Amino acid sequence: MNYKVALLPGDGIGPEVMAEAVKIIERVKTIYEFDIKFSRADVGGCAIDSSGTALPPETLKTCEQSHAILFGSVGGPKWENLPPEKQPERGALLPLRKHFNLYCNLRPARIFKSLASASPLKPSIVKDGFDILCVRELTGGIYFGQPKGREGTGPSEKAWDTLVYSRMEIERIAHHAFKAAKNRRRIVTSVDKANVLTSMVLWRETVIEVAKQYPGVTLNHIYVDNATMQLVKDPHQFDVLLCPNMFGDIISDECAMITGSMGLLASASLNEKNFGLFEPAGGSAPDIAGKGIANPIAQILSAAMMLRYSLGQPKAADAIVAAVAKVLDQGILTADLAPDSRSAVSTVEMGDAILAAI
Amino acid sequence: MNYKVALLPGDGIGPEVMAEAVKIIERVKTIYEFDIKFSRADVGGCAIDSSGTALPPETLKTCEQSHAILFGSVGGPKWENLPPEKQPERGALLPLRKHFNLYCNLRPARIFKSLASASPLKPSIVKDGFDILCVRELTGGIYFGQPKGREGTGPSEKAWDTLVYSRMEIERIAHHAFKAAKNRRRIVTSVDKANVLTSMVLWRETVIEVAKQYPGVTLNHIYVDNATMQLVKDPHQFDVLLCPNMFGDIISDECAMITGSMGLLASASLNEKNFGLFEPAGGSAPDIAGKGIANPIAQILSAAMMLRYSLGQPKAADAIVAAVAKVLDQGILTADLAPDSRSAVSTVEMGDAILAAI
Ligand SMILES: CC(C)[C@H](C(=O)O)[C@@H](O)C(=O)O
Ligand SMILES: CC(C)[C@H](C(=O)O)[C@@H](O)C(=O)O
Repeated sequence: MNYKVALLPGDGIGPEVMAEAVKIIERVKTIYEFDIKFSRADVGGCAIDSSGTALPPETLKTCEQSHAILFGSVGGPKWENLPPEKQPERGALLPLRKHFNLYCNLRPARIFKSLASASPLKPSIVKDGFDILCVRELTGGIYFGQPKGREGTGPSEKAWDTLVYSRMEIERIAHHAFKAAKNRRRIVTSVDKANVLTSMVLWRETVIEVAKQYPGVTLNHIYVDNATMQLVKDPHQFDVLLCPNMFGDIISDECAMITGSMGLLASASLNEKNFGLFEPAGGSAPDIAGKGIANPIAQILSAAMMLRYSLGQPKAADAIVAAVAKVLDQGILTADLAPDSRSAVSTVEMGDAILAAI
Repeated sequence: MNYKVALLPGDGIGPEVMAEAVKIIERVKTIYEFDIKFSRADVGGCAIDSSGTALPPETLKTCEQSHAILFGSVGGPKWENLPPEKQPERGALLPLRKHFNLYCNLRPARIFKSLASASPLKPSIVKDGFDILCVRELTGGIYFGQPKGREGTGPSEKAWDTLVYSRMEIERIAHHAFKAAKNRRRIVTSVDKANVLTSMVLWRETVIEVAKQYPGVTLNHIYVDNATMQLVKDPHQFDVLLCPNMFGDIISDECAMITGSMGLLASASLNEKNFGLFEPAGGSAPDIAGKGIANPIAQILSAAMMLRYSLGQPKAADAIVAAVAKVLDQGILTADLAPDSRSAVSTVEMGDAILAAI
């Protein structure tokens, strides 16, 4: 097995946490006997600085020649005043998603019992933990729907976007949700706004059709407004949340925040060939960049997702996940999670601890 | 002063809590010397049962002949299997909003310090309380934007909605937000998704323009996904949240839930003439309907908002708000908020306590 992986560390803490992920991958590839060739490329703010655009053509080419993209994080105050579509996050992520047709976004949000106190929710709500998988449609809906436009001047000037879904687009993402649920608690909750939006009526109808092929999985429906409430009231009720693109953007962020440990959350964006982009859920955290204190776990778990979904190395992925759990159980924590800063380990120390646990 | 008010108690707990609100209004109208004539009309599920539609023409007529609508709550399991557009909530609220051009929706979400323990957020986050006013645009955006449609068959069948805003629509709701902020903590946070949506770029630009007329108010911008996170992490940072229609639907529900006391939350939906519809934030709670245990405070505070915004009786409104605060401070609580059920008062007892406190 000989894989090529595009490494896009990006800005802020990206390069630091990426270094730890690479260290871990180097170890598992020796143990599980496969090879990975890394190709580094600029993305986001640093790419804007070096070549004027958040996603330079050479970076795209590097990605095209790879089996997967391991992405760090992008953005920072330096680029905040650029027009939205040129900014590091928007300017890199949306074109990558569209170019590689990465329609399936998986965002697990799980609360580790030992870290339940980090959650902003009160102990009586998170005492049993929770384990939610957001399955977000990522290349359709209002993000990419046509027409988009703007016209007129003065008070009657107007601007518009189109929320559009085809049955095919809904079916393929729904299948991902139901398949994932089969290996979990067997509940899919589909998030929509079918009481107001025509597109969401089609969404709901299609999800109901797809569900018939998965008789062992329970399907529930929830309106997006109610979903934001139920997530803070009783997150434990959810297993797989199936979301259209924009609702998934909103809901997955809320899921991430209620874990209280964003530094642990990974994500995968896949296409129909299991090519994927893997990235931590948190941002580039410019305030702590370069200090060596960022939590590398989200990046390391993103690497594990890459091994599982794009490179077909589930054992190596399992080994990484187990090592992370072991280290957390031992109370080895970076500053974002440590109860007091004196006991916190550094980014590199965390990487070393996970390496030792493999 | 001679006012006409359309009373639409609706389903579930609606009639019970409405009775308490009427009792309170009867008292303040004597004290502050104005007259109100109430006209009752069916709405929601009970209207579907009696005349086949959630918003019968006679009900609409009653509303047209009034200075304001005091709305209870609608919906319940009996009507859940109707097609979405016929259901009690959707079928009554959306046409009322559109018919009366109720573009300005005010949803205060405030945590009473003495009730902070009811919040699903942990004590360290809510210890200082919070007081957020959601100002939601209610007659534009993706709820009503044209075209909406559906066409084709099989996998390529598709359905769509349009998110569209004009500068005028954004300006008028932004003015409400800034004016409200002047009497509060002077911070407006505008919620958008300008990094992805063309309509939201116009939203942001227009809000920035309007802000220039309010030099004493600080304007911040937040992406809707980040807003759902910040609300659970640190709600205290927000004062006025200015939201487009659908984001307001989502965000205001999250705001309501994090107070932990939905039974206390009122809302107002106003047009340019200050005609308005006033309703509690919680639902019809069919599970506790008819038991006499529902919390009437949200309905009573909705009546206070009606007195303030549509009937121009701020003193009467203030008196009600003060009486509610006094009763809560005394630890008089209905079952939804009482620490143990034996100490809880009934719906009628709560109404009486507030009456006595006026
Ligand atoms: C940066 C932005 C375009 C992106 C999105 O809205 O999808 C981000 O919020 C995300 O969730 O990955
Ligand atoms: C019932 C529904 C149409 C309505 C909305 O989406 O606006 C409700 O959720 C609300 O927030 O008032």
